[in-house]
Amino acid sequence: MSDAHLPSVDRELRRQLARGAALPGPLPLPDHEQLWTALGDAVEGGKRLRPALLLSAHAALGGTRHEAAVQVGAALELLHTAFVVQDDVIDGDEVRRGVPSVPGGAAAQAARHGATPAGARRLGQAAGILAGDLGLITAMRTISRCEAPAPVVEGLLDLFETTLHATAAGELADVRLQLAPAADPAPLREVLAVAELKTALYSFQLPLRAGALLAEAPSEVHSALDEIGSLLGIGFQLVDDLLGTFGDAQRTGKSALGDLREGKRTALIAHASTTETWPALQSLLGRADLDDHDASRARDLLTACGSRAWVEDLAHWHLTSASEAALRHGLPAALSDALEATTAQILRGVELTLPGPAHPSAGTAPPRAKEDQPA
Amino acid sequence: MSDAHLPSVDRELRRQLARGAALPGPLPLPDHEQLWTALGDAVEGGKRLRPALLLSAHAALGGTRHEAAVQVGAALELLHTAFVVQDDVIDGDEVRRGVPSVPGGAAAQAARHGATPAGARRLGQAAGILAGDLGLITAMRTISRCEAPAPVVEGLLDLFETTLHATAAGELADVRLQLAPAADPAPLREVLAVAELKTALYSFQLPLRAGALLAEAPSEVHSALDEIGSLLGIGFQLVDDLLGTFGDAQRTGKSALGDLREGKRTALIAHASTTETWPALQSLLGRADLDDHDASRARDLLTACGSRAWVEDLAHWHLTSASEAALRHGLPAALSDALEATTAQILRGVELTLPGPAHPSAGTAPPRAKEDQPA
Repeated sequence: MSDAHLPSVDRELRRQLARGAALPGPLPLPDHEQLWTALGDAVEGGKRLRPALLLSAHAALGGTRHEAAVQVGAALELLHTAFVVQDDVIDGDEVRRGVPSVPGGAAAQAARHGATPAGARRLGQAAGILAGDLGLITAMRTISRCEAPAPVVEGLLDLFETTLHATAAGELADVRLQLAPAADPAPLREVLAVAELKTALYSFQLPLRAGALLAEAPSEVHSALDEIGSLLGIGFQLVDDLLGTFGDAQRTGKSALGDLREGKRTALIAHASTTETWPALQSLLGRADLDDHDASRARDLLTACGSRAWVEDLAHWHLTSASEAALRHGLPAALSDALEATTAQILRGVELTLPGPAHPSAGTAPPRAKEDQPA
Repeated sequence: MSDAHLPSVDRELRRQLARGAALPGPLPLPDHEQLWTALGDAVEGGKRLRPALLLSAHAALGGTRHEAAVQVGAALELLHTAFVVQDDVIDGDEVRRGVPSVPGGAAAQAARHGATPAGARRLGQAAGILAGDLGLITAMRTISRCEAPAPVVEGLLDLFETTLHATAAGELADVRLQLAPAADPAPLREVLAVAELKTALYSFQLPLRAGALLAEAPSEVHSALDEIGSLLGIGFQLVDDLLGTFGDAQRTGKSALGDLREGKRTALIAHASTTETWPALQSLLGRADLDDHDASRARDLLTACGSRAWVEDLAHWHLTSASEAALRHGLPAALSDALEATTAQILRGVELTLPGPAHPSAGTAPPRAKEDQPA
């Protein structure tokens, strides 16, 4: 990963945020300031994973448009922030990364000023939708102004637009997936298809291919990067699902009760529904009043029936296959090194934030394959 | 108005919709199809007011970039549709123009497939937010690809982006305005400021100035158009407020109970709150269970205390001042003619859809000034 260049991405983000703050003109416009500050704060919380991937791919493929890569990297971070903010509206999440989400923060502020709970919620939703709109537009504008020749910019905008269409479909598919009755778990195939559409495309394929476009890499590199991005993205989503159920809330910034209370359709649940543990587990899922004791019991069941180890294996397989695909397609060694570093970073996330199973039943779980591989 | 050219705008919209439908690739993606079809249906329902204004301004100012004007006009209709769709999410409106709104339609479909009411509402919100995002992005992309020289396109994108920032602030300000307790009506100044930010900028100033940019009109024309757009936009919003309370639901496509039930802060209410009728009226506003009889009584009170006539006068004044400003600034006669036609169209809306006061108390209302002027 070109982590060394991430300060340039942060500088570019600050430049875009300063530019946007001044756009409506010299008169103070408190509602604009609120939206824009909230978006800026949400940008602050990001890990710059997507710009780092873009910069790595661009450099590894011999690209020399460093300035444009930084600009497009900043645009991808803005796009990610816009998705996160609107996702929090859709999911009704009031906390993100351990601090109030954009809709949660705006709603809390309105409530402090005397709004009713319904009124505060509505203002929060409006703030999230509108801040997201401004983030999207700023991302697209940043790409359209980046310092690259017109045909390259055109290619980047095509990729951006296509990715947005597919990601929107993935986001809707994910909401739909979660609507099915708790008794009716989604098959793994569907869970993985949604992960690809909703996460892999914009978080992995888009940065990798944007780097390749800026480096003017040949078309076979693009198809290899699509395959790699899909593997990485699905692996990343599987790790995220593991963290959502087994993660340490102190480190992940989100409660490990949320997914269980929602009865969220993840690969964990898809696997568990095919085991004999399912009837016992099912009665615990999707209960809004699930307490810590029941959550612990659900985690124990998911561990005992092998679902946790199975999803960990599946995540490892996707992530390591991504690096292997880079070698198989003959991509430059610098790129497979960068992908291995990304994989290691994602897997490090698991080790850092997955506390070991808290109950003695953990002893009955199958061995956690590949857990000892170098990360 | 260049109504004769509106079929070209419809053709361009169909072209953009066909292009977007094909973007995610050859595999069927039902969630994308649903989002994109919903956006397309919402585009169908529009009146092309903004493209017509753009085409008129462009032609009247001697512009010859007809093709680009049609493309940017189509983009403004897409932008308007995106705002409408996301506005329906924010306001929880399930009906728009007499048919299900995008969130309302998606929620109803999910309910038919067995979703719980909360689940269906969530899916509807997601569909509205995401379809709006795609509309915004497509609008911006259509402008960035329009057939005009690069500096003109850059100017158009700057204008688009600036307008979007201010409109988002206006939308949030409007939601905030509606949160105040019913006993605390907003002053007229605030109602008009929100109307300018939320409506005038994107619906009037943006199309007029986009036409001027394409015609490469000098900067003094732009400041005149800003003044004109602000007057037209506020007048338009005032007419919309009148229709929201006194309109014929059969013709406006929205219930004339909604604004009263919400206790919406409009110029009507700002005026009424300064009259002796206010205590009697106030007790009827913001009641979710308001029935036809009470609504009739509220309308009678608004008529009797002179608020209706006063807002009608205020709307007329704004609309006619717009045409007068065009003359005063020495803009081409074709442009003032076009503005007068727009004004007449907006005022015709009032006459067509405002049934006369239904109760005898109407006789006590002040004379409806300017109502007999040629429209």
